[in-house]
Amino acid sequence: MSSNPFYSGVSRRVLLSALAVLPASAGPLLPLPVRAQTDPLASWNDGAAKQAILSFIAAVTREGSPDFVPPSQRIATFDNDGTLWVEQPIPVQLAFALDRVKAMAPLHAEWKDKQPFKAALEGDITTLAASGDHALVELVMATHAGMTTEEFQKIVVDWFTTARNPRFKRPYTDLAYQPMIELLAHLRTSGFKTFIVSGGGIEFMRPWTERIYGVPPEEVVGSSIKTRFQMRDGRPELFRLAEVNFIDDKAGKPVGINEFIGRRPIAAFGNSDGDLEMLQWTTMADGRRLGLIVHHTDAEREYAYDRNVTLGRLDKALDIAAMSKWVVVDMKNDWKRIFAFE
Amino acid sequence: MSSNPFYSGVSRRVLLSALAVLPASAGPLLPLPVRAQTDPLASWNDGAAKQAILSFIAAVTREGSPDFVPPSQRIATFDNDGTLWVEQPIPVQLAFALDRVKAMAPLHAEWKDKQPFKAALEGDITTLAASGDHALVELVMATHAGMTTEEFQKIVVDWFTTARNPRFKRPYTDLAYQPMIELLAHLRTSGFKTFIVSGGGIEFMRPWTERIYGVPPEEVVGSSIKTRFQMRDGRPELFRLAEVNFIDDKAGKPVGINEFIGRRPIAAFGNSDGDLEMLQWTTMADGRRLGLIVHHTDAEREYAYDRNVTLGRLDKALDIAAMSKWVVVDMKNDWKRIFAFE
Repeated sequence: MSSNPFYSGVSRRVLLSALAVLPASAGPLLPLPVRAQTDPLASWNDGAAKQAILSFIAAVTREGSPDFVPPSQRIATFDNDGTLWVEQPIPVQLAFALDRVKAMAPLHAEWKDKQPFKAALEGDITTLAASGDHALVELVMATHAGMTTEEFQKIVVDWFTTARNPRFKRPYTDLAYQPMIELLAHLRTSGFKTFIVSGGGIEFMRPWTERIYGVPPEEVVGSSIKTRFQMRDGRPELFRLAEVNFIDDKAGKPVGINEFIGRRPIAAFGNSDGDLEMLQWTTMADGRRLGLIVHHTDAEREYAYDRNVTLGRLDKALDIAAMSKWVVVDMKNDWKRIFAFE
Repeated sequence: MSSNPFYSGVSRRVLLSALAVLPASAGPLLPLPVRAQTDPLASWNDGAAKQAILSFIAAVTREGSPDFVPPSQRIATFDNDGTLWVEQPIPVQLAFALDRVKAMAPLHAEWKDKQPFKAALEGDITTLAASGDHALVELVMATHAGMTTEEFQKIVVDWFTTARNPRFKRPYTDLAYQPMIELLAHLRTSGFKTFIVSGGGIEFMRPWTERIYGVPPEEVVGSSIKTRFQMRDGRPELFRLAEVNFIDDKAGKPVGINEFIGRRPIAAFGNSDGDLEMLQWTTMADGRRLGLIVHHTDAEREYAYDRNVTLGRLDKALDIAAMSKWVVVDMKNDWKRIFAFE
């Protein structure tokens, strides 16, 4: 792992300390009000969403509270795409897959006439989105399999150093939501373990989640392809196979949570119908629980979308949120700022 | 989880403190020498094995050491059966399955004439062991599937409260190896995360690993069957299906480590050929590494076996251990005592 600049090589505690001082030391780019020094959710506007979060954390952490939860059972799970970072105009991992198709195309002359590769090479997202999950799986298999886990990690890390979001012209890892980074840190300070539970590829996320979110690889749950242990030239390796292992989305999220974590969360955070079952599994149980949906309502600073998109659609879960007393974050009004660079 | 007496309901730190004071407060049953108060491996005799462990831990934790490893990368993985607790005369989970077959038999009249159930009902281990993996999988499916995860957890917990090892006449959880419990605790005190990586069922282990080993559910990797998320009477549940999901044994162990932990361990502990690939994956890499095999050499206090058994066989890995410079623990000579109750 020494070749991976995303691995911090420092303990989680040190990393958190670094995150905590970041606003203060980063200078004029980050004009924070004075209260930021004491408010753990400084990038959240005062309002119902922020109050609901703080009230929940206070209730489950205060000794003697009827809602008290021992630290070992303070498990919080976070979706990634659209909950912790930007997923528009296309999910980051799809942008990665398209770039990989382009990079690999010289070795695959047949792709220029064959879907979904033709659409990928032409950047024709409309055709890709309309061609369904099968086409996306085919793209993933062609670009994410056929190498060792170490080789894939290097490909991911190298890609992140040069790739840029087309609207913000910034590295994708700059596009994590500052309010959610603060929330992750505040939960950990309050004795929670914070897990990522994403439909995205587990090996695509692990190289950078510790640096960006303070979430180490062992606390990331995601979709995966199968790997095979083998010896090559007398050295053991794990080889990535073009075969789906697990899809960590929709009803797969509670399954993944149970398999990887083995405890039921008491708080869950999502932004789309892909998170519905995770929110149900987390909140429809005894004891104090928190379910939260990030609603993308800010076309000016980020994006505004819910029922009207294919990837990242928020429809059924938005209807159920009201009945279930989940907190719905209105990004435009609840977030003072969205990115650290603002 | 409130109905589960094995869940401590206390933080890991508190649990470790409790484990640490256990020998001192448990009275005459535990006659420890005075040095136990300062020696983290008090149940280990001075010798090459103990020195190799202490030397490794010192090398990777001392700032400025050429072998220094940052805390976040201090990952240690432990096999369970035969490495952390007794696996003879039959593995604990097989004893559980046999008891379940007996308990369920009144509802399955056909079992008394049908293998492997007939052998299970008759306690005919020889026939069972000879009938291969397929028969064992059939027993597991009949006894471990067809209920929710919560229902299965209760069955496991209830079983442990009454089941007894036939030789030692004690609860199975009393038969954890005291030297290994000390080693787990000492590694954690030294900044390691200690994971269990077992061929045993992940849901069979999680209800008690925190209490016995100080290893919380989210740091347990094991074999599993598939589960399905569903709503029943308006409540979400995970239903256990009679379908293999993952076999965490042999070449499956590095695969499971990569999937669940996402980091390569720097230390691994096993006792059988089922741990060979985990030991190779851990030790055949750059930087200081520790591989260790518990060799069962003490027929008087526990059991003596290696190449001569079907379940828990140590054969190929014992040959490779010498070439690979893995530490081979001679249980008879290296362990001052084996169990906490001695």
